[in-house]
Amino acid sequence: MSDLPKSVTINEEGPREGFQTERGTIATERKIELIEALATTGLRQIQTVSFVPPANVPGMADADAVVAGIRRRPGVAYTALWLNEKGLQRALQAPNLDISGTVSLCPSAGFLMRNQKRTHEENVEAQRSILEMYKRNNVVVRRGGLMAAFGCNFDGDIPVSSVVEYVGRLLDLAAEAEVKLDYVSLADTMAWATPASIRRVIGEVRAKYPDLRLSLHLHDTRGMGIANAYAGLQMGVDIFDAAVAGLGGCPFAGHKGAAGNVCTEDLVFMCEEMGISTDVDLDRLIEVAGLAEDIVGHPLPGSVKTGGSLHKYRQANRAAA
Amino acid sequence: MSDLPKSVTINEEGPREGFQTERGTIATERKIELIEALATTGLRQIQTVSFVPPANVPGMADADAVVAGIRRRPGVAYTALWLNEKGLQRALQAPNLDISGTVSLCPSAGFLMRNQKRTHEENVEAQRSILEMYKRNNVVVRRGGLMAAFGCNFDGDIPVSSVVEYVGRLLDLAAEAEVKLDYVSLADTMAWATPASIRRVIGEVRAKYPDLRLSLHLHDTRGMGIANAYAGLQMGVDIFDAAVAGLGGCPFAGHKGAAGNVCTEDLVFMCEEMGISTDVDLDRLIEVAGLAEDIVGHPLPGSVKTGGSLHKYRQANRAAA
Repeated sequence: MSDLPKSVTINEEGPREGFQTERGTIATERKIELIEALATTGLRQIQTVSFVPPANVPGMADADAVVAGIRRRPGVAYTALWLNEKGLQRALQAPNLDISGTVSLCPSAGFLMRNQKRTHEENVEAQRSILEMYKRNNVVVRRGGLMAAFGCNFDGDIPVSSVVEYVGRLLDLAAEAEVKLDYVSLADTMAWATPASIRRVIGEVRAKYPDLRLSLHLHDTRGMGIANAYAGLQMGVDIFDAAVAGLGGCPFAGHKGAAGNVCTEDLVFMCEEMGISTDVDLDRLIEVAGLAEDIVGHPLPGSVKTGGSLHKYRQANRAAA
Repeated sequence: MSDLPKSVTINEEGPREGFQTERGTIATERKIELIEALATTGLRQIQTVSFVPPANVPGMADADAVVAGIRRRPGVAYTALWLNEKGLQRALQAPNLDISGTVSLCPSAGFLMRNQKRTHEENVEAQRSILEMYKRNNVVVRRGGLMAAFGCNFDGDIPVSSVVEYVGRLLDLAAEAEVKLDYVSLADTMAWATPASIRRVIGEVRAKYPDLRLSLHLHDTRGMGIANAYAGLQMGVDIFDAAVAGLGGCPFAGHKGAAGNVCTEDLVFMCEEMGISTDVDLDRLIEVAGLAEDIVGHPLPGSVKTGGSLHKYRQANRAAA
């Protein structure tokens, strides 16, 4: 087990994922309630909202009010998402946020065209503009991202060599803008990854860029999220995006194709049980997962919130001994 | 990836798991329908029913009728479960079954006492009687089983040395009865395992018994099922119990604690995508998972039945190329 990291950082994306994809209206104060509850669990980074046009994402229409309502807890970073200058300006005007920038590419031409209506060349130019926008606004850029790094509904399997190539392009773009990325996030955007492909892709990226810190953004659409996270841990990955209770996903067949990030408390359970520190109080996080279900008003896909932690069994066993 | 097996055998336990734990009555003909549908997927072993007292398990009251109604498909083994001589006699009198015996121990004294009201010594005697019962009835014994091999709600963590010790006792019991076991199944009965403990326990058992074939029976109560299966594959395990659609489990919070085996189609997806042959037609199995949901009348926990296989994307991509 010597290659498992000693500790991991979890970037909680549940509020943004959940508030963005849930049908029906969630009251602003309940969104704030979830964010504040998450901040009591030991999680150190919480993505709160996305600043996107309300016409496109009605669930985010109150993003400014949500952020303004948060009572900050020391030691917790509150982040947000935006897709353009207009969104960034809203974020910069909001109180309570920890703003940093992301530059991202995508090895799949098909996904890029469908999702962002850009060719690879146009996307590189767009990323240059984004880096300039950050410089203009004195926003530090910390994160590189690679979407669809493990496969794509439009382009099919993505060659590992392409992933390595696009990591290189990302680093070149950053260097050109005199930006030093803290890490690069490999995203399994359309849930094509298996533990074997996680190991293969990370192995190849590591072989070329041994000093580059990597993180994983894993979707659980095909039930591989936790297994893929384990494969990442085996490769030394120590930053993961996750969503409390599996927010963003839904076990109802009616929500076809909807599936969120890997579930935070399931990931915390696995890490802590394997001796990998997350700094998260699992039993408290399980309570917050219950709160998330209460807020959205239907069951969410996480398992440990129902199965429970093992603490009470160990305590009873110690008491009996 | 060189230590992953080239192929795996899946023992489908969905019908027995599902019909046993579901609330409400499932019509006998629908049970037969599911068993026959599973036999069309490429699965080669299907556990159909358990022969237990109807007073204890009302959902199995029609076990004899279910088994009698199956139209057998060549190449598929139809198995059943029983707990004593009376159950075995019902199985022996039923048509259509492939009968073989199991001998099993449990390293947890607490679980043994709660579950079977026996001490370790009493259980060894009980297993001797069971082996004699099989001999008397000319039933071949193929399988050894170890319950609660990864942790126990009553005894807490189970030392790895105990697991190795009880595997030894199991082999001694078999040798004493002049039985050669095909394999020993390690069961994570109460869902305490993580990928790290799977690797640790299997590693230690292998170190002592290098020629012993092992299988895994994994419960998904805490969402670790697929990750634990992957850890097993990494250790060369090539036999797994699984349940179509995750039958036996239920995503509703109302069914607290209910969680079935690892989901068959999720396991098949992972194996096939990693180049490990299962002989199962995944798209057909996904249809049968939908049938299982239709039969029980509520959503079941598997993911790939909603997320879908990757075949259609690859086909579209090839067609476009």
